[in-house]
Amino acid sequence: MHAVIMAGGRGTRFWPRSREKKPKHLLDIVSDRTIIQETVDRIRELIKPKNILIVTGRKHARELMKQLPEIPVKNIIIEPVGRNTAACIGLAALHIQKKMKDDIMVVLPSDHAIGNPDKYRSVIATAARAAESEDALVTIGIQPTGPHTGFGYLEGGKAVGSIGGDEVLRVKSIREKPDLALARKFVKSGRFYWNSGMFVWKASTILREIEQYLPDLYSGLMTIKDSLGTDSEAKTVSRVYLRQKSISIDYGVMEKSKNVFVIPADFGWSDVGSWDALWDISDKDKKKNARTGSGMVLFEDTEGSLVYSPGKLVALVGMKDVIVVETKDALLVCKRGQSQDVKKIVDALEALGQTQLL
Amino acid sequence: MHAVIMAGGRGTRFWPRSREKKPKHLLDIVSDRTIIQETVDRIRELIKPKNILIVTGRKHARELMKQLPEIPVKNIIIEPVGRNTAACIGLAALHIQKKMKDDIMVVLPSDHAIGNPDKYRSVIATAARAAESEDALVTIGIQPTGPHTGFGYLEGGKAVGSIGGDEVLRVKSIREKPDLALARKFVKSGRFYWNSGMFVWKASTILREIEQYLPDLYSGLMTIKDSLGTDSEAKTVSRVYLRQKSISIDYGVMEKSKNVFVIPADFGWSDVGSWDALWDISDKDKKKNARTGSGMVLFEDTEGSLVYSPGKLVALVGMKDVIVVETKDALLVCKRGQSQDVKKIVDALEALGQTQLL
Repeated sequence: MHAVIMAGGRGTRFWPRSREKKPKHLLDIVSDRTIIQETVDRIRELIKPKNILIVTGRKHARELMKQLPEIPVKNIIIEPVGRNTAACIGLAALHIQKKMKDDIMVVLPSDHAIGNPDKYRSVIATAARAAESEDALVTIGIQPTGPHTGFGYLEGGKAVGSIGGDEVLRVKSIREKPDLALARKFVKSGRFYWNSGMFVWKASTILREIEQYLPDLYSGLMTIKDSLGTDSEAKTVSRVYLRQKSISIDYGVMEKSKNVFVIPADFGWSDVGSWDALWDISDKDKKKNARTGSGMVLFEDTEGSLVYSPGKLVALVGMKDVIVVETKDALLVCKRGQSQDVKKIVDALEALGQTQLL
Repeated sequence: MHAVIMAGGRGTRFWPRSREKKPKHLLDIVSDRTIIQETVDRIRELIKPKNILIVTGRKHARELMKQLPEIPVKNIIIEPVGRNTAACIGLAALHIQKKMKDDIMVVLPSDHAIGNPDKYRSVIATAARAAESEDALVTIGIQPTGPHTGFGYLEGGKAVGSIGGDEVLRVKSIREKPDLALARKFVKSGRFYWNSGMFVWKASTILREIEQYLPDLYSGLMTIKDSLGTDSEAKTVSRVYLRQKSISIDYGVMEKSKNVFVIPADFGWSDVGSWDALWDISDKDKKKNARTGSGMVLFEDTEGSLVYSPGKLVALVGMKDVIVVETKDALLVCKRGQSQDVKKIVDALEALGQTQLL
């Protein structure tokens, strides 16, 4: 079995901690380890480091290697430019097929958090068995805890069977991020799951599906395939990538394929998509306050708040539901529930030409 | 005419900017100049620097001299310990009498802000004339803008006369900080003024009143008087001060004296008593946000807030009525309206032994 960790994100939503040079997955936001270190730690009990591939951009490769010394350097696959998940997954599938004729590939985002890793690994093992025996695209569907409008949804259909206590369902439909009314319907129906962005399939299966639904990408991948391991590899990958459209595997393949399964799962998953999401999964005191970083924090008449301080004393007085993030050159104070608007600050800094703060 | 600037305050309410080593009056909180520099700048158009005395504690004397090079070093009067305003004023009166037989002394807090300095100087000139001709204790009463419970109040009585457009009234009563109901009555009556803590009188007048109402202090002062300019001065002042009770001139003398006048005035006075008070007097944008310090500040969906940043970018998202004060080793985020509770943080730091943050 191979794991493919997709590490291409910018993570502007964790500004001011996340920066262009250090996107979210390279930060120790959830624990003392960085999120990608946690991701590798979690999967390596199932898949050896020599079988873990990481796809990333050139500017983050060095930091990745530093953070993950156990991953062989040749397993770090560089994309010349980001072209969303379809190209990324296709490229990784080629690398797996070059190593061995075919294998199961477990596709994992680099920047999610999992509360129950044992359960997580057992679901992935189940998914691998289903992907192998059914030659299918297997997705992990998260039992929704509310009508979240920031996720895609998977509609579960007929049960195919049950492996090790986990049900395997056919996917009836895949839905893009819904509005609140629709999300509520989804959750109420009991048949919909959050699309976790974790996929399990054979390299040959996904390449076959790409051939069918994304023929342009497929032909580009075949050009790359011939160049792999040759002197012209980097140049060929660049040439092919620059011509590709940016398209997600969900939109490009999964929504069209007749061959998608889902395993409903509940293992404390979070996409850690914003400071709000981080507060959700953080340990909190009686007044629902959370603190991270090594700095001293004093809460006076304050509740529902999250403070990150790497060193200095942070004192909150009379605050309710606020996120405070202190860094060397920037400080964010944000109402909890509005952390998606942190992106507006990043946009403003970009417009102002304050590139050193991005 | 002499000015006596009382510079003994701790100013814990401006933590984390104000510290034991740098109380409020030594900080550039209101403008680019420090508050005591502003105080001297304001009065020196009326009273020459050689006639401005400053009473302060030993640990702030050096910084004071640095900030006020125009004030002769011998005009910096050191108190060995703080004993509130009665002792401070008595000591300053002795120094004035030593320089010249008698003179008008204008007693000024070091840490207030004045919006209209021309009007301020004209009121002081009026007060000086009243103090001279009536041999009285003349106070400056501020026209209240609301039922503030943090100030003492002066009840105006019979008009004594009018000098240069300013009315001079006898003071009927002096009231300590009232509760809200009483403060409302005071304001509604139209007869009450905030006690600004600015006083004008002859040195001989206040010493005579101290003799009458605070005989212990007076006898201490007489001991000091004999030692002024001798080798034993510092030792004598210390010995006398250590024996004195801490008592304010308001409580010790003014409340008892039959000889108190008030000049009602309106010159944009603020005691700058808290971060809230600073927001009140700050220039604000359309959304009532104020910023100080040289750091860049971005407000996104934010109103009614005050940010001090000496250098780093501060971004506020979705905040309402919040005070953010960034310093090298401490950060304060406080709900506007609750800045009096900043003292609780200072108390907590004291209890935790975090003396470097005090």
